This record gives sequence, structure tokens and C-alpha cells, in this order.
Amino acid sequence: MTNIATTVDVAIPQGARRYPICIQPGLLTQVHRLIEEHLPKAKKVLLVTDDVVEELYADAVKSVLKASGLEVYVFVAPMGEPSKSLAMAEKIYNNALLMNLSREDAIIALGGGVVGDLAGYCAATFYRGVNFVQIPTTLLAQVDSSVGGKVAVNFASAKNGIGTFYQPAFVLVDPDVLKTLPERQLQAGLAEVLKYSMIEENCRGDLKLFEFLENSLTRLEKHWPELIAHCCRIKKAVVVQDETDSKGIRAYLNLGHTFAHAYEAATNYQALLHGEAVALGLLKATALSEQLKIFPKVETEKMRRVFDAWKLPAEPPSGLSASKLLDLMRLDKKAQNGKIKFILPMVHIGQVTIRDNVPDDLVLSVLS
Amino acid sequence: MTNIATTVDVAIPQGARRYPICIQPGLLTQVHRLIEEHLPKAKKVLLVTDDVVEELYADAVKSVLKASGLEVYVFVAPMGEPSKSLAMAEKIYNNALLMNLSREDAIIALGGGVVGDLAGYCAATFYRGVNFVQIPTTLLAQVDSSVGGKVAVNFASAKNGIGTFYQPAFVLVDPDVLKTLPERQLQAGLAEVLKYSMIEENCRGDLKLFEFLENSLTRLEKHWPELIAHCCRIKKAVVVQDETDSKGIRAYLNLGHTFAHAYEAATNYQALLHGEAVALGLLKATALSEQLKIFPKVETEKMRRVFDAWKLPAEPPSGLSASKLLDLMRLDKKAQNGKIKFILPMVHIGQVTIRDNVPDDLVLSVLS
Repeated sequence: MTNIATTVDVAIPQGARRYPICIQPGLLTQVHRLIEEHLPKAKKVLLVTDDVVEELYADAVKSVLKASGLEVYVFVAPMGEPSKSLAMAEKIYNNALLMNLSREDAIIALGGGVVGDLAGYCAATFYRGVNFVQIPTTLLAQVDSSVGGKVAVNFASAKNGIGTFYQPAFVLVDPDVLKTLPERQLQAGLAEVLKYSMIEENCRGDLKLFEFLENSLTRLEKHWPELIAHCCRIKKAVVVQDETDSKGIRAYLNLGHTFAHAYEAATNYQALLHGEAVALGLLKATALSEQLKIFPKVETEKMRRVFDAWKLPAEPPSGLSASKLLDLMRLDKKAQNGKIKFILPMVHIGQVTIRDNVPDDLVLSVLS
Repeated sequence: MTNIATTVDVAIPQGARRYPICIQPGLLTQVHRLIEEHLPKAKKVLLVTDDVVEELYADAVKSVLKASGLEVYVFVAPMGEPSKSLAMAEKIYNNALLMNLSREDAIIALGGGVVGDLAGYCAATFYRGVNFVQIPTTLLAQVDSSVGGKVAVNFASAKNGIGTFYQPAFVLVDPDVLKTLPERQLQAGLAEVLKYSMIEENCRGDLKLFEFLENSLTRLEKHWPELIAHCCRIKKAVVVQDETDSKGIRAYLNLGHTFAHAYEAATNYQALLHGEAVALGLLKATALSEQLKIFPKVETEKMRRVFDAWKLPAEPPSGLSASKLLDLMRLDKKAQNGKIKFILPMVHIGQVTIRDNVPDDLVLSVLS
């Protein structure tokens, strides 16, 4: 077995599926060894990536896979959210068909959340499911979107409107790739890291993450493997209990996301990175908790110190009307009969509560 | 609980999902009671049907659903295989979006296999899965395609190329609808019934079906509920062991289908109904078993008596080249590295074996 510095094992009791998240600097060029171990029957791989990641890492991955005897095909999508579409999925299906990809072969996602969601949706649906491998190259994808099996494309006004749940054969995380990640993308990922620290008590209970973040503000890069693994363990603790988002447990992961989805929709998924919208959402959720008098100001201030040290975005794009944002929240696929579900910080950092009866005027007041 | 004459309970151990197949003459106009029982939170339903079934049964279903307080929307696809496309799925997604369908609501398939596969694929993927109800209106769909959770659309040259596994909340089977089913469609369904009788020993072991068919050749219509239930039980016995077709057990269901898929592909899915192609496939599989000397002529003759009494189609469309058909079999998504997998009758009716090493010249000889 490949010797991996940090491995998080995800075992989903329903279906008895199990896969590892393997975290190690330099692991990118060991991908062939993980394929040999977990997918010994694969003969072909379809590497799905975007044009920016292709320049940086596709050759390195391609060459080790080819050297190990695999047939490698590459599909390059333009970077960015518009690639998460049914039209792009059809192009990938066509490629898979032309290369005669079989169920024993694999689709590999090499990229951020967009590439992972798109390639994962294609892997889930082509021939009713071919093997899938995640190689997340952004911090956000490493700590969040590559774990948990949610795959999707956007449809019309519905972000992630068409999708399914599909678990990968393994996730390969190489923290070294973060060295080339633009600052803005890194901050977007840190917003999700901060989110994990704010829900940890509900999900796992050991509450180490926020303290760690406070103490490591300026030298995070020395701790990527542990930090990523810690976030993955929190997400895993939720996912193994509620794979298909049907028990409400998975909702904790959506702290800040009710607001975030509205900000993203209001700006047509163009002005804000998902993580940036989450950062704004964390501030609004905290403000709402303060209004509801369930979260003390001193905790907000602790949270803001980390938020500000990382220079996370605190100001929404200008010109967004509060009532428009509220309408968008009502249309979210998590809303039930127009009731908006908020995940809100409570008592102290690490603990959240779920509320679906927040008065509109309070929501409007934190939005404006 | 609604009092149903015959219920087959499908319990899939992976995921602990469970749903009933409810079989009863006249049950069509009781659909609202099954919705109330199994989907008490549903407020809206999207009824997907085709233009032929719409004329016959949509009003009856719509009116009982409306009377029970549900909001009902209807999507009508043109009858026939071309409707099983991503383009048609997109139209259904658009309808679901416009009516603001939520995960607690339901998509209902009212029709044959095409409608069930199409609507099921949309239900599986819209918002990562909304409730799904099957009301099969052809014999083939009642005994086969509505059970087991395979949903898909066709893609380019790949029949069922894009799909997933998704179980319904319940299946409603009203044998009375077979009274309006055209003779040709009925025969197509009978081909799958005959298939079940030929695999029963591998799947269940009680071997009652073929004997029953021999004894009831001319008065099947008196026995629809038991006959449909018996076929569903055989299919269920396979599906609960191998939901996602990963253990090889589900392959038994493909008796005759390796040939059938090639015939369908060679005629562009237009000249033959799926069940007609299966009928041809059963003959070819039997002929191949005879060539391999694993199936005695006397058993073939018993099978042919039922086959002929039902007037199942025995002659492929003219002009198909044997080598073209062989090439198509190699491209089938079940083929592994060009090795074609045959499910073949063995020893006596009811028992099959799986072979992937049949010499090409034998296959060519039964094809020509």
C-alpha cells in the first residue's frame, strides 16, 4: 500500500462504500500508484481539467499515468462556473464514448470545485456510473467540495440544479499545489475553513479547529496537511451520517450558505467566488444570530479577528437590494414552501442551530 | 393502509431502501391513496406521460390526484424511443423548475418503458433527487422496466448511455390498462415474461413460471396479477442482491439482451420494439447454447411451443449483416475489453450460464 502521510477514511454505512482521502505534499505525481491500488482493472482514464490547471499540472499527471501503462485522454473545460453546464457534460460524454471508456476505467477530476462537480456528474451518469477520482487543486475543493459525493451542474436559474450523489474511488490531495493558487482563491477556501471551525461542536465535538486557526494565523502554509485533514474529518463526520442530505444533519455544512447562494444568484455567479460568498454569508449569519440574541458580541469579535487577519471579503458587491436577496433565498432548493432555513451560530464559536422561523424584517435588516 | 390484492415488497439492503410494487385491477384511480400513504408531504406532482397514454389515462389520474388536493402538472412527450433523450430531459427539468417542484414533491411516470426511464432519470437528477412514482402501462414495463431502479436516456450511439440507479417510492400496476395495449406491445412484453421463465432457477429456484406459461397459453389475461407479481418477484430477487449491477448477478436478467441490443442498434432503435428484439435474442441465445452443446434440442422445442403460440417475432428485419451485429455487440457497455458477455440457457429451461469466451464463428453462424 502506498505510504500516505495523512489519510482520512470515509466509510458510508449505507451501501457499505468506503474510500480514502489521501493527503500528502508531492502526492500528485504518485497518482498512478493510487490508481493501481484502488482501481487495478482500469485501462483508460479521462482526465477532466480546466485551461488554467492544465497549464500547471496536467502534463505531470498525464506522464506518470502513461508511464504506468494507462491510456490517457484529456478534456479541458474553460475555467469558471459557466463550464458547470449540461452542454459541457455532453461534450465529456462524447469524449468518453469516442475513447470507448468502460465502467472499469476512470474519470479523473483535476481542478477546483467546478471541475470536480462537472466531472463527477459525468462519472455518475455515464453508463450509469464509471469510476471517479478527485484531485482537488484549490483549497476550497480540498477541504470541502471534493469530499461528500455531491456532484452537479447548474441548470437555468438553479445552481447545482441537476446532480446526484456519487462517491469517488479515492481523493488525492497534494497541498503543494496550493503554492500556485491565486491569493483570491486561497481566501475563498479559507472562508470554508472558518465555517468548519464554527460548526465543529455540532459535527464532531472536539472543538480544536478554531483555536488552531487563532494560533496559526500567519503560518498556515506550514500546516496544510493537518488543517486539510481536520476539515475533511469534520465533513466526513457529517456525510457518513447523512449521505443524501435527507436527515437534516448535513444542513450544518450550510452555515453561511443560505446567504451565500443568494449573493451568488444575485450576481449571476460571476462577481463572487463561492468561498467569497460564503465569507459574506458567515458575517450575515453571525449578525442575524446577534439580532436574535443567541450569539454574544464577544464571540463575533473573536471570529472577526480571524476573518480580518485573512483579509476575507466583508463587503457585498454594491447595488444588491435586500428584498431581491430575500426573494432569492425563498427560491433556494433547501427552502420548503417558502420557509427559509438558516444555520446560525449559537452561544459560542463551534455551535450552530437551525431555524426556519426567522422574521423577514430581521433578515432584511442584516442584508441592508 | 390501502388494501392491495398483490404487493411485492422490494427491500434493498444497501441504503435500507424499501418500496412496494402494488398490483391490482382498477388501482389506477386509487393512485392518490398510495401517494397519501407513501408521500404524505407531497404537495405537487409532475405527471410525465406520452401522447398515446395521455389520451387514454391521463385525465383519470389527474382528476383523482387533483381531487385529493395535489397540484398537478402534466408533461407529454411524443410516444417512442426518440423521446428518451437529454433534450427531452431538459424540457422536463424546465417544467419542474417553473412549477417550483421541491424534493418532497413527486415526478410520476405514466407510460411504458420510455416514459419510465426518462421520467425516472429526471427524478433522480433534478435537485439531486425528488420523489419518483412508476405507473407502468405496458406489459413490458409492468414486469420489467419499472422494477429495479435503472433509469436512463439514450446518448448518441449508446442506448441507455446516460443514466443512474434510482428507486421509486412505489410502483402502481393496474393490469386493466393492458386491455387497451396494442397486440404488438403485448407480445413485446410476453418476450420478457418468457425470459423470466428461462432464468428462474438462477434467480429464485422455484421454477413455476414456465410450467404456468405452458398451461395458460390462451387465457393469460385471467391471470395478469399473479403473472406480473411472479415476474416482479424474480426481478426483485436479483435486484436486492445487486442493485447497481456490480456483482454480476444482475446479468442473468440480460438473457437474450446481448443479441437484442445489437438488433436494436443495427436498426437505429426504430424497426423493433425492445421486447421484439428480446424475442429474437432469446432464439439466438438458445441456438448458441445448442451449438455449444449445453442445451438439449427438446428444451428448445418446449420453448418454441410457447414462443409460437404467442406469435412472438422470430425473423430479424432483413438486410442486417452478421458481422455488423457482432461489431455492435463488442461496443455494448457490458462488453469488457471487447469480450462479449453472453447469458445462455443451459441444461433445461430455467437455468442459464454466463460465458465471455464464445468463439466469434459460432456467434456469426447463429446470426446468419
